[in-house]
Amino acid sequence: MSRKGILAVVSGFSGAGKGTLMKALLSEHADQYALSISATTRGPREGEVDGREYFFKTKEQFEQMIEDGELIEHACYVGNYYGTPKSYVMEQLEAGKNVILEIEIQGALNVKKKFPDTLLLFVTPPSAQELEHRLRGRGTETDEVIRSRLKRAVEEAEFMDHYDYILVNDDLETCVQEMHELIQAQRHKTSQNQEFIAEMKEDLKQF
Amino acid sequence: MSRKGILAVVSGFSGAGKGTLMKALLSEHADQYALSISATTRGPREGEVDGREYFFKTKEQFEQMIEDGELIEHACYVGNYYGTPKSYVMEQLEAGKNVILEIEIQGALNVKKKFPDTLLLFVTPPSAQELEHRLRGRGTETDEVIRSRLKRAVEEAEFMDHYDYILVNDDLETCVQEMHELIQAQRHKTSQNQEFIAEMKEDLKQF
Repeated sequence: MSRKGILAVVSGFSGAGKGTLMKALLSEHADQYALSISATTRGPREGEVDGREYFFKTKEQFEQMIEDGELIEHACYVGNYYGTPKSYVMEQLEAGKNVILEIEIQGALNVKKKFPDTLLLFVTPPSAQELEHRLRGRGTETDEVIRSRLKRAVEEAEFMDHYDYILVNDDLETCVQEMHELIQAQRHKTSQNQEFIAEMKEDLKQF
Repeated sequence: MSRKGILAVVSGFSGAGKGTLMKALLSEHADQYALSISATTRGPREGEVDGREYFFKTKEQFEQMIEDGELIEHACYVGNYYGTPKSYVMEQLEAGKNVILEIEIQGALNVKKKFPDTLLLFVTPPSAQELEHRLRGRGTETDEVIRSRLKRAVEEAEFMDHYDYILVNDDLETCVQEMHELIQAQRHKTSQNQEFIAEMKEDLKQF
């Protein structure tokens, strides 16, 4: 039975460890996953490569993509556009790869509206204390930035209920394993097996 | 975090191998699962023990149980009542055990109506041909019985879409593993983590 891949959206608090989690998942199961690459109008940061971290676009190019329906979702943050190019995602799903989008909550909910089978995953540290601890532990942010991230987490927490599953990232390896199993499990979803069900119904009629 | 167990209902075609599957799942993960025992008014068959295969009840006792709301679901087949006693199921779920009900489609849909978080699993052989092959392979049934089971499968197939997940029982060990992972995955469901979410929201407010 050839199956399409699963479309999963991962969101979560800044400091929940989404990035590390994604990297570990993709390196452990490289043949089964594709990480979607976003398009953005913000300029590349040092070390960022076009087509690897992001597809870097001009405002005009980006707005053309919106107009042409080439984006699954898009949003504006701090004056820049961010969006998910549709063609790459569709190609990978057709090829049987699970595609993971790491996007913000509003984008996540928009994807779910367009593609109801999308698996919405919310990644969180085991506690608010641990979230603060991790944000401070990075040692790279000012107190002000940390406080603004924590304030934002308060707002984001209000949307946790809109997600299908909550993944507590306590131990990285455990969380990677759980995320993989969760996504694998979706391959058995009734909505993912419509072809099989139709065939079964048809073949049973011979009796 | 103490969590309640998952309530899962397993249905599927006669000949799909549900019984063997359940036995394997429970023997491999005895500490995590409890198989619900049904109450029935049909008489015990040779070798059946009250409280093991079934709780054997008189018609009067059974109807009293219905009246007292002691059953999660019940149905009537070939003149006998069958039902799922509520107290045992609730106790096991509270104790963190996953409870599996192996029941017919109508009962399954009734349980889902009462307990929307119930996981509905439909077990099927990989093909209609394989289903026939397995039914004949048992060598214990008359041709007439086999034909009536296959006819029933045609009707049952119409309800596959009402189930959450379809499990193809091709290789037993694979299927047991898949079922276990599916059920484990449900522990991350948002609806199963309401306490955690509430705590997180509350604790984040301190920042």
